[in-house]
Amino acid sequence: MTTAMRDTPGMTDRSLRVSRRTMLAGGVTAASGVAAGAAGAVLFTGEEDVASAPEPVAVEAFHGNHQAGIATPPQAHAAFLSLSLKSGIGLERFASVQKLLSQDAERLTQGEPPLGDTEPELAKLANRLTITFGFGYELFDKLAIADRRPGDFTKLPKFELDRLDEKWNGGDVLLQICADDATTVAHALRMCVKDSRSIAKVRWVMRGFRQAPPVIDEGATPRNTMGQLDGTANPAPGGEAFAETVWRDGDDATKNGSVLVVRRIRTELETWDAVDPAVKEMSIGRALDTGAPLTGKNEHDEPDFDATNDLGFTVIPPKSHIRRAQLEDGRQIFRRVYNYDDQVSADGTSDTGLIFASYQKDIATFADIQAQLDNGDMLNDWVTAIGSSEFLIPPGCEPGGWVGETLFG
Amino acid sequence: MTTAMRDTPGMTDRSLRVSRRTMLAGGVTAASGVAAGAAGAVLFTGEEDVASAPEPVAVEAFHGNHQAGIATPPQAHAAFLSLSLKSGIGLERFASVQKLLSQDAERLTQGEPPLGDTEPELAKLANRLTITFGFGYELFDKLAIADRRPGDFTKLPKFELDRLDEKWNGGDVLLQICADDATTVAHALRMCVKDSRSIAKVRWVMRGFRQAPPVIDEGATPRNTMGQLDGTANPAPGGEAFAETVWRDGDDATKNGSVLVVRRIRTELETWDAVDPAVKEMSIGRALDTGAPLTGKNEHDEPDFDATNDLGFTVIPPKSHIRRAQLEDGRQIFRRVYNYDDQVSADGTSDTGLIFASYQKDIATFADIQAQLDNGDMLNDWVTAIGSSEFLIPPGCEPGGWVGETLFG
Repeated sequence: MTTAMRDTPGMTDRSLRVSRRTMLAGGVTAASGVAAGAAGAVLFTGEEDVASAPEPVAVEAFHGNHQAGIATPPQAHAAFLSLSLKSGIGLERFASVQKLLSQDAERLTQGEPPLGDTEPELAKLANRLTITFGFGYELFDKLAIADRRPGDFTKLPKFELDRLDEKWNGGDVLLQICADDATTVAHALRMCVKDSRSIAKVRWVMRGFRQAPPVIDEGATPRNTMGQLDGTANPAPGGEAFAETVWRDGDDATKNGSVLVVRRIRTELETWDAVDPAVKEMSIGRALDTGAPLTGKNEHDEPDFDATNDLGFTVIPPKSHIRRAQLEDGRQIFRRVYNYDDQVSADGTSDTGLIFASYQKDIATFADIQAQLDNGDMLNDWVTAIGSSEFLIPPGCEPGGWVGETLFG
Repeated sequence: MTTAMRDTPGMTDRSLRVSRRTMLAGGVTAASGVAAGAAGAVLFTGEEDVASAPEPVAVEAFHGNHQAGIATPPQAHAAFLSLSLKSGIGLERFASVQKLLSQDAERLTQGEPPLGDTEPELAKLANRLTITFGFGYELFDKLAIADRRPGDFTKLPKFELDRLDEKWNGGDVLLQICADDATTVAHALRMCVKDSRSIAKVRWVMRGFRQAPPVIDEGATPRNTMGQLDGTANPAPGGEAFAETVWRDGDDATKNGSVLVVRRIRTELETWDAVDPAVKEMSIGRALDTGAPLTGKNEHDEPDFDATNDLGFTVIPPKSHIRRAQLEDGRQIFRRVYNYDDQVSADGTSDTGLIFASYQKDIATFADIQAQLDNGDMLNDWVTAIGSSEFLIPPGCEPGGWVGETLFG
C-alpha cells in the first residue's frame, strides 16, 4: 500500500487518475499536467494513465499531524457511526481492533481495499473519503484507563430545551465517514461496521448530505434544508483562527487533536414554512438570500451588533441566532454540519434537520455557546436537539502508526 | 418563467451559468463558449455571466414529447414519492392539483421557485433536477374513469419469492424526483408534498443514490452496494432499441409515455459477503471487476450463452442472473436503478438494497422477465423484493400544457 502525507497534494506513487472534481475544486494543481487558473477557469489537459487505473480516484491524504476530515473541505456525504463497546472488552483487545480500523481507514481513503474487503471494487473510488475517529467519555472508564482521559474533556451539561432521545445519544467510539459520493460512504461504513463488530455494537448511524463542489463553488457556504446559508461565520481552515479554535495544544496525548460534538437538531419545517421571511431573517440575524448580516450587504460582512434603527432598537435583535451564538471573549467553534432528511409521515411532515458536527479544542467553548443559545435564541422555536454526544479526537498518525495510539497504545 | 424544449441543449434565455458538472458530463457543448473534446479532455474557458446569476445552475429541459427523468442520464440522487388519493376527491379536483404539481416541476427543474415556495433560494440550484409523474392502477377507479385506463396496463402478478411489505407497496400517484445534489431533491420533495397534501397522503418515500458523473465517466455503468456493475445490458437512451423498449407507441393518451415498475429489493449483504467471489460471478454471469460476461473480456461484450467449458457445461450458468433476465424474443426493460442504504441494526446488519426502477412500454415485458427470475435466478439467494408497484407514465407536455393532461384534462 502506498500513502501520502497531508499538506502535500494527495498523490500516491500508484498511477492515480486525478478526478475531475478534485481538479475543479482546486485540490490538486501543478501535479499530473493540470493547471488551474483563476475565477473557476480550469484547463484539463486530459493527461491520464488510463491503462493502469481505469477509474478516477480523488484522495485525501490519511497521514499527518491532524486527522483528516476536520480541516478537509467538507464532502457532499457523511455517515456518523457511533459504537458501544461490548462488555468484557479490555484495553489490549480494544486497541487491536482500533488499530485494524485505523488501517482500514488508511487503505480505504487511498482507494485501496482493506484486507478482507469482500467488495474490493467499491474501494477503488475514494471520492475524497475521510474517516475520522473519536472516543466517548465512558470508554475510558470501560477500559479502566480513566487516568488517560484529559481533565477538561467532560460530558456536556444538560440544556433546558434539549429533548434528547436515547436512540441518538452517546457512544464509545465515533467514526465520521465523509466522501463526495454516497456509494463510497456506504461501502466504508459497511467495512468499518464489520471490522468493529467483534468488540462493539452499533449504537446509531446518522447519514447526512450538504452542498459541496461542484454544486457550489469551492469555499462557498452551503444552504441547509431551512434555506439558510449555514456556516458563514466559521473560521477558515488553514488560518490562525481555525488552528486556535480547533486544535488541542496542551502537552498531552490529544495534542493536535480536537473535541467533536455531534448534535441531532430536528427542524420544524411545518411551522418554519409558515413564518414571514422578515421574521426568519430577524431570528437568524442575516438576510435569507445573501446571508449578509442585517447590518451589512455581503455574506462575509462583520455583523454590527450595536447598530440601531430609527426606533432605537438594535438592527440585529439581541435574541437573534448570530447574536446569541457569539461569546464575549471571542472563542469560537468550527461547524462541519450536514443535513438529514429521513422519512416523511403520511400527513407530509418531514423528519429533517441538521447533524450538527462541531469541532473545537475544548468542550467548555461549545457548552458556553450552547448555554447562550439555550437561554434565548429566537431560532429555538423551530429547532430542537434530539441527540447529543461528545467525542475526544486524537491527533493523526504517521505511516506505520495508527489513530488512537497516543491514547490506547 | 422561461423554459427550454428537450432535445435542444437545456439552456433558457435567462443568463444561466453552466455548471462545471454539466459541462464535464458533455450535457452542454457548443453553447456558452464550451468545447468538449474526446476521451474526457475538456476545455473550460470560464466564459460565464457571473453578475446576473451568482450560482451555477445545470438544468434539464422540462417540456418535450417525453417526460424528463427517463432518457435523462441518471442523476446521483433520487426520491420516489408515492401518494394515496384521499377519499372523496373527484376528477376535477385531482386534475387541478396535478396541474399545479406539473407547474411546480416545470419551475423547479428550471431553477425557479414555484409560487408559494417558502425557501425560494433552495430552488435556484436545479442540479439537473427532473420530476417524473406516474399514475397507479387504482387511481382510475377512484376517479371513476376506469375507461381511460389503457387495457394493457394491469397490476403485476404475484411472484412466489416476493415478500412484499405494505409499507413499500402501491400508490395512486408517483413522483420520481432526481438531481445531482441531495439538497435539491429534499427541497423539491418537500415542495411537492406540500402542494399535494390537500388531496393525498404520503404512502411511501424511497430515497436512493447511485454513482454518476463526475464520480464516474459519462455513460459508464455504476456499481451498486453489492459491488456489481449494474445496468450493463441497458439499451442506450437515444438509440432505436431504447425507443422500442421504453416509449408507448399506441394511439392513445399514453403515446410517448411509458410504464414504470418500482420494486424495493433488499440485498442480504451478510450472506453475500460470505460467498466466494467465483460463486458471485457464476450467480451473476459476469466478472465482478470488469463486468464482462463470463464468456467475454470487456463489459459490453455480448454474452455467449451457448459457449461450453471442458466439462460440457455452459460457461454462463443457465440459472445465472443475466441468463434468466433474457427473454427469448428479445424484449427488454430499461433499468434506472438506485441504491438505498438505510439504518444499521445493533448487530451491524445493513438495511440496504436496490430501488429497482424499470421503464418499459408495457407491464407484460416486465412481468415476463420477472417470472423467469422468480423461477430460478441464482441471485435470489441474496435479493428479495419487499415492495412492488407499477405506474402508467403519460407523455411530456408542451409549454402551456401539463403532465397528465392527456389522461385527466
